[in-house]
Amino acid sequence: MHGLRSVSMTAQYQRIVLASRPRGKVSSDNFRIETVDRPVSLEPGSVLVQNHYLSLDPYMRGRMSAAKSYAQPQALDQTMVGETAGVVVESRFAGLSPGDHVVGRLGWAEMGVAGGESLRKVDAQKIPLSAYLGMVGMPGVTAWYGVNIILNARAGQTLVVSAASGAVGSVVGQLAKLKGCRVVGIAGGAQKCQYVTGHLGFDACIDYKQEFSDAELLASLSAAAPDGIDLLFENVGSTIFDTSLACLNPHARIALCGMVAAYGGSAAPLNNAGKLLTMRATLQGFIITEHMELWPRALDELAGLVTDNKLRCNETIAYGLAAAPGAFAGLLLGKNLGKQLIQLI
Amino acid sequence: MHGLRSVSMTAQYQRIVLASRPRGKVSSDNFRIETVDRPVSLEPGSVLVQNHYLSLDPYMRGRMSAAKSYAQPQALDQTMVGETAGVVVESRFAGLSPGDHVVGRLGWAEMGVAGGESLRKVDAQKIPLSAYLGMVGMPGVTAWYGVNIILNARAGQTLVVSAASGAVGSVVGQLAKLKGCRVVGIAGGAQKCQYVTGHLGFDACIDYKQEFSDAELLASLSAAAPDGIDLLFENVGSTIFDTSLACLNPHARIALCGMVAAYGGSAAPLNNAGKLLTMRATLQGFIITEHMELWPRALDELAGLVTDNKLRCNETIAYGLAAAPGAFAGLLLGKNLGKQLIQLI
Repeated sequence: MHGLRSVSMTAQYQRIVLASRPRGKVSSDNFRIETVDRPVSLEPGSVLVQNHYLSLDPYMRGRMSAAKSYAQPQALDQTMVGETAGVVVESRFAGLSPGDHVVGRLGWAEMGVAGGESLRKVDAQKIPLSAYLGMVGMPGVTAWYGVNIILNARAGQTLVVSAASGAVGSVVGQLAKLKGCRVVGIAGGAQKCQYVTGHLGFDACIDYKQEFSDAELLASLSAAAPDGIDLLFENVGSTIFDTSLACLNPHARIALCGMVAAYGGSAAPLNNAGKLLTMRATLQGFIITEHMELWPRALDELAGLVTDNKLRCNETIAYGLAAAPGAFAGLLLGKNLGKQLIQLI
Repeated sequence: MHGLRSVSMTAQYQRIVLASRPRGKVSSDNFRIETVDRPVSLEPGSVLVQNHYLSLDPYMRGRMSAAKSYAQPQALDQTMVGETAGVVVESRFAGLSPGDHVVGRLGWAEMGVAGGESLRKVDAQKIPLSAYLGMVGMPGVTAWYGVNIILNARAGQTLVVSAASGAVGSVVGQLAKLKGCRVVGIAGGAQKCQYVTGHLGFDACIDYKQEFSDAELLASLSAAAPDGIDLLFENVGSTIFDTSLACLNPHARIALCGMVAAYGGSAAPLNNAGKLLTMRATLQGFIITEHMELWPRALDELAGLVTDNKLRCNETIAYGLAAAPGAFAGLLLGKNLGKQLIQLI
C-alpha cells in the first residue's frame, strides 16, 4: 500500500503517448513521455486507479499503424493503449472501493480514470496481481479460446504453436498438454527452447534461429511432428506459418492469432496456401476482445489451473514507465522470455 | 436407345488411361487410348453401363500428379477417373434394370462395370441426363455445400466467386443470388463475363484477362464490390485469390474449393494472408466427396431449382472418347463455357 499512499498525495503523473507512427521497426522516437495533472474530481461512476503493472503485447504494434485492421489505430498524442493491473485510489463506482485490485485498459500511464464497468476486480491474494495480465488475462483467454473453441484439441493430436515461449504460446502449449496432445513449440533461441521443453513441459521445441534455410526448418518441424500437424496455433506468420502449412494433416485446424512477423512490413508471402485446400483445413482468424461472452468461463478455468499449479509462465519485467518503449521494441524482437510487463510500483 | 442396342452387340470398347504424369501443362501425350474386351459375364451385384456422357473436371488434374493430396493419385495405365452418366446394359443388381439411366464413376471409357451400390439411378425425363454431371451432380453439390454450409450466405452480403462461368462457379453465383446476395464473378474473357452477367444474372463480372496488373485487378474488384467481400468462394487460387483477400470484410467467410492455378505448378504466393487475421476470417478447404451425407438434400434442392428453371448452366460438349484429352487440356486453360462434357452417344 506504500505506492497507493504516495501517489494519493501527488498532483501529477506520467504517461506515454504515441508521438509518430513507425516505419518498419519501432523505436523510442515513436513515443513521448508526458507529465499530466491528476484529475481534481471524478465523475459519477468513475474510478481513479494507480497502475502497478502495464502489459506489453504484440498487438500494440498493429495499433501503431494507420492501416485498417480489426481495431481503430492508436491516436497520435494520446496515451498508448494497453492492459493494466493496479489499485483503486478513489471511486465513485458502487462496486469498487479504494484498495481494491483491478485490471483494466488504462494504457501506458502511472494512473488513470476509467468507468467502473470497464474494470475487473481481482483477488491478488490467491493469484499474483501480474498474472491477471498474462495467464489469467487477455493472453490466457486468447490461448484458451484458440485451444478449446477453434482447435477443439483432443488427446493424441499433434499441436504446433509458434512464439511458444510468449505469453500466449506458453499457455496454448500447456493447455494442449493437459488435454493429452503432443505439443511442439517454435521459438527463437536455445534459452527459449530450453524453457519451453524444460519448464513448460512441451514435447519438443524448434529453435528457428538455428535453421539456416526454409528447408532445414521444414526438416526440423517434420522430425518434431513425425505424424504431421493436426492443430496449429499461429502467432507469427510469414515463413514459420508457411513451413507449418507444409506439414498439415487432413482436416487440420488453424487458429490464426498473430502475424507478428508482418508488423515490420516484411512478411514473406505464403507458398503453401494450397495445403489449406488439399488438406481440407479449417482456419479461423480471431481477436479475443470479440468474444467477451466466453471470458468469464475462460478466466475461471485459467485461474483454477494457476491455483493448482498446472499452468505457469515466466515474466520479463522492466521497471518504471520510461522503460516501456525500450521493452516494447525488445518484445517485438523476441527479447522477452514469457510475459513482458512494466512494473511501476 | 439406338446407342444401347448397337453397343450390346459390340465385344470391345475403348477407354483412356493415364500414360504419364504431366510436368506443368497437360498434353495429349499424357494419355493413351486403348481397346479392351467387354466383360463376358457379370459378378452378382454388378452392372454393365454404357456411358453417354463423361464429366471433365479440374480436380482430375490433381489426381494426375503423384503428390499427396486429398485422394490417391490416379494410377498409371488405369482408366482415368471421372463421373459418368449413361444407361444400364446388363444388371445383376436388384435395384437396376437394363435401360435405367444412371450416374456413376466409370471414368474415361465407353462402357464399364460397377457395383450397383455405386450407381445413382436418375430421372432423365424431368432433367436432361447431362445435367446430372453438372448442376444436379458433383459440381452442383460442391456449390451448394459451399454457399449453404461453409459460407451460410445471407441477403445483403457480397459474394465473390472465381471461375464464375464454370460448372461450380455458375451454380455458386445463382444460389447466392437466390438468397439475395450481391454476386460478383471473376472470369477470363469478355464472352464469359457476358454470359455470367447476362445469362446467369450475376451483378457484375470481372474479366481478369483485361487487367494488366495486380493493382488494376484490385481496383476492378474493389469497384465491383464497393462494400467489400463478405463471402468468397475460391476456385482458382494464386493472384486472383490474393486479390480477393485484400478486399475482405470483417468476419468474412471463405470456401476454398479449388486452386486450379496451382495445378501447373506456377501458383503465385499469397501476399495478403495477413487479412485472414486482421479481418478475423474463417476459411475452410473442402472436398465434396467427404460430405456424402448431405448429397441427397443438396441434390433434391438442386433438382427442384433446375425443374423450376431457376438454375441454368451452359454446356461445352466435345464428341467421342478420343476428344477427351484435348477437351481436358482446354478446360484447364479455361476454354470451356460452363460445364465441360464429352458426349459418347
